[in-house]
Amino acid sequence: MNQRLSIELAIYSFSSQLALCKCRIFVSADLQNLGARRVCVMTDKNLSKLPPVNAVLNSLAKYGINFQMYDNVRVEPTDQSFLDAIQFAKKGEFDAYVAVGGGSVMDTCKAANLYAASPSSEFLDYVNAPIGKGKPVTVPLKPLIAVPTTSGTGSETTGVAIFDFKELKVKTGIASRAIKPTLGIIDPLHTLSMPERIVANSGFDVLCHALESYTALPYNERSPCPANPIDRPAYQGSNPVSDVWALHALRVVAKYLKRAIRDPEDREARANMHLASAFAGIGFGNAGVHLCHGMSYPISGLVKTYKPKDYNVDHSLVPHGLSVVLTSPAVFAFTAQIHPERHLEAAEILGADIRTARIKDAGLILADTLRKFLFDLNVDDGLAAIGYSKADIPALVKGTLPQERVTKLSPRPQTEEDLSALFEASMKLY
Amino acid sequence: MNQRLSIELAIYSFSSQLALCKCRIFVSADLQNLGARRVCVMTDKNLSKLPPVNAVLNSLAKYGINFQMYDNVRVEPTDQSFLDAIQFAKKGEFDAYVAVGGGSVMDTCKAANLYAASPSSEFLDYVNAPIGKGKPVTVPLKPLIAVPTTSGTGSETTGVAIFDFKELKVKTGIASRAIKPTLGIIDPLHTLSMPERIVANSGFDVLCHALESYTALPYNERSPCPANPIDRPAYQGSNPVSDVWALHALRVVAKYLKRAIRDPEDREARANMHLASAFAGIGFGNAGVHLCHGMSYPISGLVKTYKPKDYNVDHSLVPHGLSVVLTSPAVFAFTAQIHPERHLEAAEILGADIRTARIKDAGLILADTLRKFLFDLNVDDGLAAIGYSKADIPALVKGTLPQERVTKLSPRPQTEEDLSALFEASMKLY
Repeated sequence: MNQRLSIELAIYSFSSQLALCKCRIFVSADLQNLGARRVCVMTDKNLSKLPPVNAVLNSLAKYGINFQMYDNVRVEPTDQSFLDAIQFAKKGEFDAYVAVGGGSVMDTCKAANLYAASPSSEFLDYVNAPIGKGKPVTVPLKPLIAVPTTSGTGSETTGVAIFDFKELKVKTGIASRAIKPTLGIIDPLHTLSMPERIVANSGFDVLCHALESYTALPYNERSPCPANPIDRPAYQGSNPVSDVWALHALRVVAKYLKRAIRDPEDREARANMHLASAFAGIGFGNAGVHLCHGMSYPISGLVKTYKPKDYNVDHSLVPHGLSVVLTSPAVFAFTAQIHPERHLEAAEILGADIRTARIKDAGLILADTLRKFLFDLNVDDGLAAIGYSKADIPALVKGTLPQERVTKLSPRPQTEEDLSALFEASMKLY
Repeated sequence: MNQRLSIELAIYSFSSQLALCKCRIFVSADLQNLGARRVCVMTDKNLSKLPPVNAVLNSLAKYGINFQMYDNVRVEPTDQSFLDAIQFAKKGEFDAYVAVGGGSVMDTCKAANLYAASPSSEFLDYVNAPIGKGKPVTVPLKPLIAVPTTSGTGSETTGVAIFDFKELKVKTGIASRAIKPTLGIIDPLHTLSMPERIVANSGFDVLCHALESYTALPYNERSPCPANPIDRPAYQGSNPVSDVWALHALRVVAKYLKRAIRDPEDREARANMHLASAFAGIGFGNAGVHLCHGMSYPISGLVKTYKPKDYNVDHSLVPHGLSVVLTSPAVFAFTAQIHPERHLEAAEILGADIRTARIKDAGLILADTLRKFLFDLNVDDGLAAIGYSKADIPALVKGTLPQERVTKLSPRPQTEEDLSALFEASMKLY
């Protein structure tokens, strides 16, 4: 689908008002080309009143395409919120889906499409092992058009859907190429309604997607090697293709993230961050992520009372991008022992002066560069600032252990003691 | 298919002997996963005795996969050589194809797959207009696995098949996403048997794919805009995705092409050029090429008695990469008027010192950089050195006019007089 996505990127990115309007016609034209008769439009309550959703609904109405809207997506979805969307999808008997929103919306729509196409499956059948059964997806899914409205997840390019598994207080997900959207429509004007902290936190997700996939265990060091290409995991480790996307996305983040956060009217910056989100997605969707993401799931899952600025929700939550970036200085100081040159290269792209740097200091240099980057952007001062204390570390470690699908892609293997030390080192950043 | 290709790249590129052997099992495993029962292996007479073909045949034999081999592919194919391969494919009633070779083999196999799947079509039905009817491909094709053995064409990533149309003495082709290979297996060890001039000429094709797609008319300046995405041409103009691949491939060419030509044992250089060929292919396959390629078709089609070194063929021919690169200094001196900063950026990547360069000199600087690059590699001194004189220019121009599918992607429109001047300026390079 990436070739198709790349074509859409080419047409829609940096869209002028004219192209934008054309793009909105294209949503319906694409649905007609796909033979869609009953379309499910999925979004969340906030977005349902905002321009991106209106644009899609107007396009559907103009083309006379029959649709139903589901706007009950939960920001940072749970197993229950997935199940609610799945029930809606099963009832609707849709032949196509349009997800308009951030990662929460796109991931919920992927799950709804999957389970509606496989009605006899138990919810845990497709959830990643060891929490679920991790069964391969063999049923044909309906077309899904993803229209991202945040610039972080890159979910429009990946076969991953993440949710909070309430019972275990841990994030997990579904990972299969089969749930990857048919088409991603990257329209930067959709991001103009993003508040400042949402731009920042989603941008941190792009930053970590790029850094983690570039430093992930190389594809040719991963084991076991599949005996058959069909058994190859979605996350294969860093490789010559993902490296191109990771480095490119990292350069865009270094150049545009601060501008995109500080000035909602800086269309060049917002457009480039919207592309960077998709580009980093193509990279990590193929290479994978590792410790920042693996450790982020319990950080979000065990949230106490933290309520982030700019998120209009009725429950406490740690935004995904924030939960990922808070451990990044500690993580890369830890992993730099392996492939330090890649860590130093990343630090330089993020603005570090490495002319006199020693390769053995690569991890510390990247960690300091990240701390400065986060400090400049007024990021909460570590896990302590979002409500965690040393007493929570055992639970955070316990919540990380089931994330081996990603943690095993860390270039450096880690013990429970290592994980404890990484959480402890992330309590305070500045 | 690019996502799949990118996965294969990740697995196969830089393959060790072990991975290589695994890769050769994978050819058969992939065919079994595709449900193939009767496989057509296509190659040319020279390759049929070389390791890459033996490796594939051994793999098929080991897996007991029933196959027939067609080794009659013509280097620089013609309508007749396409028709011979098509006839073989129609008789064989194959359910999958494996193309092992350079662009000539892969392009011939794409055409054979297309017309065998559409037996009632006339040959001209799918040939690019205005020479053919340029009909859209609506029939389902069989899976095609492309195993490139040269590092230039990138044909394993594209939906294009080029041939000499003898009657008109001009090159033309078939362009449709439908004929793009299902899978590309990029194994750099397959390139170790390439003679020096074949490495050079195929490398020049990568160089021009990167330069032309990076300087092509931008996607948002191309007209007419399609009313429906289904009407979008294969070649869309330069865009944010193709730019990433074009620049990356250009950097690899600048770093590794000379090394790959000079030392067949330089595996790092040959492996990186093999990847660069696929990367540039992903870029131009989406953005397109322009004048160097448009003008190259008559340069090849009107060949007189030129027989290049290292090509073991019984007919005179101008290797595609050579026919493309000989006009490149004149072409980029001409196009630099539009987007001169991109031309200057390319010159810098190729080694020019642009610290004191004036933007208005961008074209001359890139042209001089290319001349030096070609001189260092002992490239024939212009069109005169391969048998053309001023008297041939009207015929060369006439042969370029039907190539508007690509020439219209030139950032600067061109008259017949402009084309004459470009051919004349390309008679002598040094």
